[in-house]
Amino acid sequence: MSLMRNTETQSPVNNLVFGIRVLLEALEANKEIEKVFIRKGMQNEMTKKLTDRLIALNIPFQKVPIEKLNRISRKNHQGVIGYLSPINFASLDNIVDQSFSKGQDAIIFLLDRITDVRNLGAIARSMESMGANAMVIPTKGGALISGDAMKTSAGALHHLPVCRVYDLKIAIRFLKDSGFRVLAITEKTQVSLFKTDLLGPIACILGSEEDGISPDLLKLCDLQAQIPMKGQIASLNVSVSAGIALYEIIRQRNDG
Amino acid sequence: MSLMRNTETQSPVNNLVFGIRVLLEALEANKEIEKVFIRKGMQNEMTKKLTDRLIALNIPFQKVPIEKLNRISRKNHQGVIGYLSPINFASLDNIVDQSFSKGQDAIIFLLDRITDVRNLGAIARSMESMGANAMVIPTKGGALISGDAMKTSAGALHHLPVCRVYDLKIAIRFLKDSGFRVLAITEKTQVSLFKTDLLGPIACILGSEEDGISPDLLKLCDLQAQIPMKGQIASLNVSVSAGIALYEIIRQRNDG
Repeated sequence: MSLMRNTETQSPVNNLVFGIRVLLEALEANKEIEKVFIRKGMQNEMTKKLTDRLIALNIPFQKVPIEKLNRISRKNHQGVIGYLSPINFASLDNIVDQSFSKGQDAIIFLLDRITDVRNLGAIARSMESMGANAMVIPTKGGALISGDAMKTSAGALHHLPVCRVYDLKIAIRFLKDSGFRVLAITEKTQVSLFKTDLLGPIACILGSEEDGISPDLLKLCDLQAQIPMKGQIASLNVSVSAGIALYEIIRQRNDG
Repeated sequence: MSLMRNTETQSPVNNLVFGIRVLLEALEANKEIEKVFIRKGMQNEMTKKLTDRLIALNIPFQKVPIEKLNRISRKNHQGVIGYLSPINFASLDNIVDQSFSKGQDAIIFLLDRITDVRNLGAIARSMESMGANAMVIPTKGGALISGDAMKTSAGALHHLPVCRVYDLKIAIRFLKDSGFRVLAITEKTQVSLFKTDLLGPIACILGSEEDGISPDLLKLCDLQAQIPMKGQIASLNVSVSAGIALYEIIRQRNDG
């Protein structure tokens, strides 16, 4: 769904790649592709080769009616339109390796189905400004790095390493195996954030604007903490929650 | 400017009052009026009476061409359209009196020219959720409590006391005279927020998205603190800054 919605925020001119061959070449040249639309019903060897490559590279694609492709561009798209990503994605393995080789206690944020591009942008801005090591987003089910996200991030998305993973569960398991403790920010616990020890390598997960963190991710977490609430609304905007969580992690490192 | 911009987000049907007499009656009946448009060039005794009353009650008004009024409504507006406020404003004096009589160390946030209604709404949501006593906004130069602000606040603006003041300088002096310490969240200091003692009654001021806190307000503040920054962007969204500042004030009260 968000894949469709965010299309409107893309510049229609500079960031498109048309046709299977050109797209395969772009992938070969290590260009970052954000997403791909393929005409419904296209079934030939080249299409198979493309979709196999997209799956291998963890790039989202969607089969759409030809009318949708024609609305995006009148150019000769031959049934395939790819969107160049405005950023280069980072590898989670590399981020973790680098932090350990520098002797850093890394801070990594994972976003579970954050669908509002402005929230995504504001979170990236906080992460970059306060010094998180990376932000991890899923290939599907969350906001994409659109022009609006770039704008709301105030440029942070050009600097902050962003990792795109197929499955956040696998990312969490990988981080745990690498020595990270995984912290869930959730209203479903009574444990206060500022009474939680957050020293050492920390991965912090935040959930969707609608229903928080998915139960299957929540149960993988080592720590659950809530930001103390008093009022009748008792829920924060997710970008505010993310900023507070990162602030608390940094505060504990700076004054013990 | 923001007065004009936010007009579009108002429901055009239920919240309008037409004509001088009806507007004066609404004021007499203590209806909250958010803002008033008066046709340019209207100069008679009743108009004078209305504008005097608006000034006395600290309600923003603007002289506009008749075309603007006609665009807002085709009803017989007789040169005057008032917008009913979606919320009831609170009196800063009362908020302060109530907190002292309850023996509370109140927390009050002041917003200096925050012009984005979504930021205003997100700040109100954090204030209500985490338990600030009130939010103070200026009559002019900031975002108005529009439908979009209500929506982004997730309903918090129905619960959080909001005070509208003509001059934030006067509000700051009043708060200082009442025993509050005034904290500025600003990048112009090296003092870290978490190394600043925030116990006792605190008023916290945040500045505009563009250029922070006005110099004439900044110099009235007792304390200046920054949220620690590391990255290249080194600036947070103002609603994230507000959430972090309130979190830190509450944290210090809860665990000493």
